Amino acid sequence: MGRTHSNAYLRLHNFFPVEHRPVLRAVCNANRQKAEQWVDIWGYERAESDWRKLLDAKDIDLIDICVPNVAHKEIAVAAAKAGKMILCEKPLAMNAAEGEEMVRAVEAAKVANMISFNYRRVPSIALAKQLVDEGRIGRPFHYRATYLQDWTISADVPQGGDALWRLDIKSAGSGVTGDLLAHSIDTAMWINGPIARVVAKTETFIKERKHVESGKMEPVGIDDACMFLAVFANGSMGTFESSRYARGRKNFNTFELNGADGSVYFDLEEPEYLQYFEYKQLQSGKKVESHTAGWRKIHVTNSEHPYMSRYWVPGTCIGYEHTFLNQLADFIGGIESGVPAQPDFRCGLRTQYVCDAVLESARTGAWVDVPAGMA
Amino acid sequence: MGRTHSNAYLRLHNFFPVEHRPVLRAVCNANRQKAEQWVDIWGYERAESDWRKLLDAKDIDLIDICVPNVAHKEIAVAAAKAGKMILCEKPLAMNAAEGEEMVRAVEAAKVANMISFNYRRVPSIALAKQLVDEGRIGRPFHYRATYLQDWTISADVPQGGDALWRLDIKSAGSGVTGDLLAHSIDTAMWINGPIARVVAKTETFIKERKHVESGKMEPVGIDDACMFLAVFANGSMGTFESSRYARGRKNFNTFELNGADGSVYFDLEEPEYLQYFEYKQLQSGKKVESHTAGWRKIHVTNSEHPYMSRYWVPGTCIGYEHTFLNQLADFIGGIESGVPAQPDFRCGLRTQYVCDAVLESARTGAWVDVPAGMA
Amino acid sequence: MGRTHSNAYLRLHNFFPVEHRPVLRAVCNANRQKAEQWVDIWGYERAESDWRKLLDAKDIDLIDICVPNVAHKEIAVAAAKAGKMILCEKPLAMNAAEGEEMVRAVEAAKVANMISFNYRRVPSIALAKQLVDEGRIGRPFHYRATYLQDWTISADVPQGGDALWRLDIKSAGSGVTGDLLAHSIDTAMWINGPIARVVAKTETFIKERKHVESGKMEPVGIDDACMFLAVFANGSMGTFESSRYARGRKNFNTFELNGADGSVYFDLEEPEYLQYFEYKQLQSGKKVESHTAGWRKIHVTNSEHPYMSRYWVPGTCIGYEHTFLNQLADFIGGIESGVPAQPDFRCGLRTQYVCDAVLESARTGAWVDVPAGMA
Amino acid sequence: MGRTHSNAYLRLHNFFPVEHRPVLRAVCNANRQKAEQWVDIWGYERAESDWRKLLDAKDIDLIDICVPNVAHKEIAVAAAKAGKMILCEKPLAMNAAEGEEMVRAVEAAKVANMISFNYRRVPSIALAKQLVDEGRIGRPFHYRATYLQDWTISADVPQGGDALWRLDIKSAGSGVTGDLLAHSIDTAMWINGPIARVVAKTETFIKERKHVESGKMEPVGIDDACMFLAVFANGSMGTFESSRYARGRKNFNTFELNGADGSVYFDLEEPEYLQYFEYKQLQSGKKVESHTAGWRKIHVTNSEHPYMSRYWVPGTCIGYEHTFLNQLADFIGGIESGVPAQPDFRCGLRTQYVCDAVLESARTGAWVDVPAGMA
Repeated sequence: MGRTHSNAYLRLHNFFPVEHRPVLRAVCNANRQKAEQWVDIWGYERAESDWRKLLDAKDIDLIDICVPNVAHKEIAVAAAKAGKMILCEKPLAMNAAEGEEMVRAVEAAKVANMISFNYRRVPSIALAKQLVDEGRIGRPFHYRATYLQDWTISADVPQGGDALWRLDIKSAGSGVTGDLLAHSIDTAMWINGPIARVVAKTETFIKERKHVESGKMEPVGIDDACMFLAVFANGSMGTFESSRYARGRKNFNTFELNGADGSVYFDLEEPEYLQYFEYKQLQSGKKVESHTAGWRKIHVTNSEHPYMSRYWVPGTCIGYEHTFLNQLADFIGGIESGVPAQPDFRCGLRTQYVCDAVLESARTGAWVDVPAGMA
Repeated sequence: MGRTHSNAYLRLHNFFPVEHRPVLRAVCNANRQKAEQWVDIWGYERAESDWRKLLDAKDIDLIDICVPNVAHKEIAVAAAKAGKMILCEKPLAMNAAEGEEMVRAVEAAKVANMISFNYRRVPSIALAKQLVDEGRIGRPFHYRATYLQDWTISADVPQGGDALWRLDIKSAGSGVTGDLLAHSIDTAMWINGPIARVVAKTETFIKERKHVESGKMEPVGIDDACMFLAVFANGSMGTFESSRYARGRKNFNTFELNGADGSVYFDLEEPEYLQYFEYKQLQSGKKVESHTAGWRKIHVTNSEHPYMSRYWVPGTCIGYEHTFLNQLADFIGGIESGVPAQPDFRCGLRTQYVCDAVLESARTGAWVDVPAGMA
Repeated sequence: MGRTHSNAYLRLHNFFPVEHRPVLRAVCNANRQKAEQWVDIWGYERAESDWRKLLDAKDIDLIDICVPNVAHKEIAVAAAKAGKMILCEKPLAMNAAEGEEMVRAVEAAKVANMISFNYRRVPSIALAKQLVDEGRIGRPFHYRATYLQDWTISADVPQGGDALWRLDIKSAGSGVTGDLLAHSIDTAMWINGPIARVVAKTETFIKERKHVESGKMEPVGIDDACMFLAVFANGSMGTFESSRYARGRKNFNTFELNGADGSVYFDLEEPEYLQYFEYKQLQSGKKVESHTAGWRKIHVTNSEHPYMSRYWVPGTCIGYEHTFLNQLADFIGGIESGVPAQPDFRCGLRTQYVCDAVLESARTGAWVDVPAGMA
Repeated sequence: MGRTHSNAYLRLHNFFPVEHRPVLRAVCNANRQKAEQWVDIWGYERAESDWRKLLDAKDIDLIDICVPNVAHKEIAVAAAKAGKMILCEKPLAMNAAEGEEMVRAVEAAKVANMISFNYRRVPSIALAKQLVDEGRIGRPFHYRATYLQDWTISADVPQGGDALWRLDIKSAGSGVTGDLLAHSIDTAMWINGPIARVVAKTETFIKERKHVESGKMEPVGIDDACMFLAVFANGSMGTFESSRYARGRKNFNTFELNGADGSVYFDLEEPEYLQYFEYKQLQSGKKVESHTAGWRKIHVTNSEHPYMSRYWVPGTCIGYEHTFLNQLADFIGGIESGVPAQPDFRCGLRTQYVCDAVLESARTGAWVDVPAGMA
């Protein structure tokens, strides 16, 4: 994640006409040697091994938090108190209680803040949101999302350490729920509004893995897979599923929304496409479907598509890292314009509430109501 | 349905080397005029308007039940008592209690019996089953199924009558659960074994529709949509969803099974394909994925594929109706060989148990255990 | 082919409301035993081993010619003289000279005649034609077609005999040009008008194969592969290619037409789809492309699609054999209405002219003009 | 193009462990104001308006030529004489005679040189080449390529100027042949070896366009579309087609290679995929195709795929610009290692010979032999 964020700061002004150009003052890693490699490769001005030094630094205005979830809250709260702007990796926190503390901190300090649900800035996903906002989908009936990967099927994959902290419950707080479903939930609520209730089931297929730090077999505390049913506040129904045990699915982050007037489908493994089914109005006052109706694959690479006018000629694709560029442009644009870009911490907290409700339902087996938001 | 079944009886010997060739003795419809049209078009020898006459007929060995669900039990039980072989449309019955009575009847009478889950006989689905049986999928982790249509979105669609009895709770017993999900459940259990527990949510989006017979607006009693989570007996996780409100989906009967060694995906809208991801064993004792791994679209039209040697040259597709031909060939082949083809009524009852559990969970909100089977 | 034709005659009235129902009087095969098998399986009233007897039979009105190309002309000319209606498999003849003789014969005898370019009756292809006729494609620029298979790659495949006469130059007249490209050419000219000029290249990759009848290795006389460039009379450009050496392609009969206002694409391996790109007119007098433009996959299975109202519910597919049913319905409907269905022999002759020009160009290397038609 | 090249120089060391890090000394544009914008946005140290100054500059080692084709030769020859390394946009030159002069210049000066056929560095295309080199395709039979776009259909598009010089024969030398087919030809010969002979047809659909500089309607000199047949030196057959009039195709650069043992297919509109059909060897000494054969979509995003270990986690896509990064890494790696990366100018000249032969054949209508290469 540090690479994608660094790349975004470095390249922003190559593609977006922002007033303020980021300067990479310092990179921090508890391992100073690693931090210094980043100075070399990414051009940071200095390396630090204690993040508190960044908060004391006068030449630093913005803190970018790319650390295991367990450390989000402490750093973010401290950064807010130090008056720094904050861009924080998702999920917001280990749980909603921590998230609420973070929201209070940034709102008390009145610092600009954003949580990095970067997939909102995939042009195809942004286009899906646009189609909804244009009224092309109509009354929503169904939303379904999957986020499937397959990289932890082998029992030989260890947990913990720098590379595999996502498998370690103490660092990550949860498994696929906080890591992958958090993306799916944020996208779902952005496009289809709040989730009101959920019922969930989680599973840990491999019960023990060697811990990188202890070198011993230790119980696996995270959820390997999670599936849940949802009812949205608007009355539509949702299914969500995530796993790292779906053989053949690499980054299969998909969603589909079915409404009375149209449907959209997206798959992150072919991010250049948004699939769209339009239920055509051919006669005034009467919707009729013609012999030409069909799911269309919109190649979201034209200049009229979200973000795409900043890049190359029509028909050429952008990559994963550009979602971070787009996000940063929006974040900085929001600061410049005074209209904060979303999702800010308060928005990110709503996803945290859903994640907590999902995990609670998985424990109890009962439907769980999701809080509407923090007062 | 009557057309697909009639067509299967008529054409069976054109494609399959069965010993016994069906003879279309009589067609029965309460509306005699309609029955007589069938005599004309499909070549039945005579028309009847009272199904009991068929049971008395000496020249009739097999009763094919293609009527609304509400009438399955009475006809089937009577046919069994009359010593007739029975092929019955799905779902087996209005509920498991009726289904149990039907099973008892056919087993007491020792008559050949089958329930028409015809999609087992889509060559691509049969190939999926074959791949599982060959051990190519390995330990199963996930199964997900959808059965989506969009033909009832308009509030102007009425309920009841000959054409729309599926929307009428009194004739159908349930909505998408018995009509569409029954297919998905039968396929799932055939391929991935018994379902142990479910939690479900149903929805009726349009609350009132005009009834064809009464001419009045009446409450809609069926489930327009149903989604549920499942735990299979083998420990794998399942998601199921069905709706007739999924704009753009016509007959989107899909399933995906992810196992440690491979995955399969099927979509009934392009029935000629089975998608398969193979996790390759390249070295003895060690499974490794190579640079050539990918989801492959198997064009299930070669002579080595299930049923396809009976039809045309490789590369040419068969259609919907051939699933009924294949089913009938298996049913008759089972009678001839003495090894009954599946799914028989007892097998169909297991799907009924799941449907009942799903509907119960939708009412209570709690997880519901599925009975293992009738004693 | 005999099976698809027999099936069509048998089933026609099950699906189409024709006035005249075909009766299968006689099947003819030089091998009487085979003919008798057809009596058994397909229900012909009698078997013959000499086709001339069919011409003499008073109870036979229509002759269906499903024999190697080399015998088309003799049978068709004789049948016409005997006053029989004729449905003849494609290609029309061994060459245009033979084809002209056949056209003269049927026109002199004034007998109904049709050549079985059955793919015109794939609903998706018929829909493509409809879109062109509706003006949705606009000025045409490009047409490209492929017809690729892979079943003759092995040098072990023999030539000749009943099964493999298509590989024997003496029976077939040409290889892929007459067998596969004839389909592509007929479709192309139906949809995009006459072909004016061609330049071609053929290849025979395996130079010798064992002959089934002689048992000896003999030179291969047919073209294994053929590719050609075309200029249509309307000024658009065309590319055509056919091969039986395209590994992985089974029945890859595809075409694409690009016009100023839209494009269509079809692939026979997924016949239920027609792909269509619409260049949308959003403002009066000005065509502009919106952010929702994309190739759509039309699932050609709704009742408003060509032929589909005769079959099953929306979303269910028909198969290869139904193209023959549709064709027969059109042929008989044309006879009943007095407006002959196309393609008749005269129309089929135009494809023969193109095939001859292609083969001539392959020999000489020069562009060859295609005759506009027989006087 | 200047943006993609600048971006590549700037970012190279972020992703590739090269010894030498490019420094952006100077950007040159005849319009100084534009050049200065590049200083601002892309961080060049200085702006120039006369390219000759770059050749005199001691601090400049490498000249990157991103100008209309008409200027390639003069700049490249001068740069070679000045001892500069050269990276030149494609096509190499206006014609082969110019190209030969350029080859002689760089070889005489012994300067590192490369022509920017960047698509060789699309990971999926590089993987196709790897599969060929691994012997997975076997004896080649067919190669087919298209490069289709649709942005010049409107007669309102003008020609000439900075943005539209590609439509101006004086600046571009040819139309789609040099612009788009040059890519297709380079890829084809890289993967399938030299092209021996061609026969071609070009077309100019819009005969006159307003010239940006003169403001007047002027004849269109370029080819709007070009199609040709080819025979490769290895005996396989090829079809090639390019157009800017293929409605709905944006950057449809596709190719397919069919061999005895396998096939590959690629489409630049979904660059993350390579489609591969493997003809499986299941038994020693005998190739047999199993029931699991099918075209697989390889998601070319794993670390074992070409170039992908330099970027993000498996399953995440890179974009168009990374092909330039990959290319630059290879070019600089070749300079560092002493083994020049391809395609150098001499290699690019071979594509120029094919383009010249294609255009000659389009004029004469006859097959034209392609020179094997410059002595």
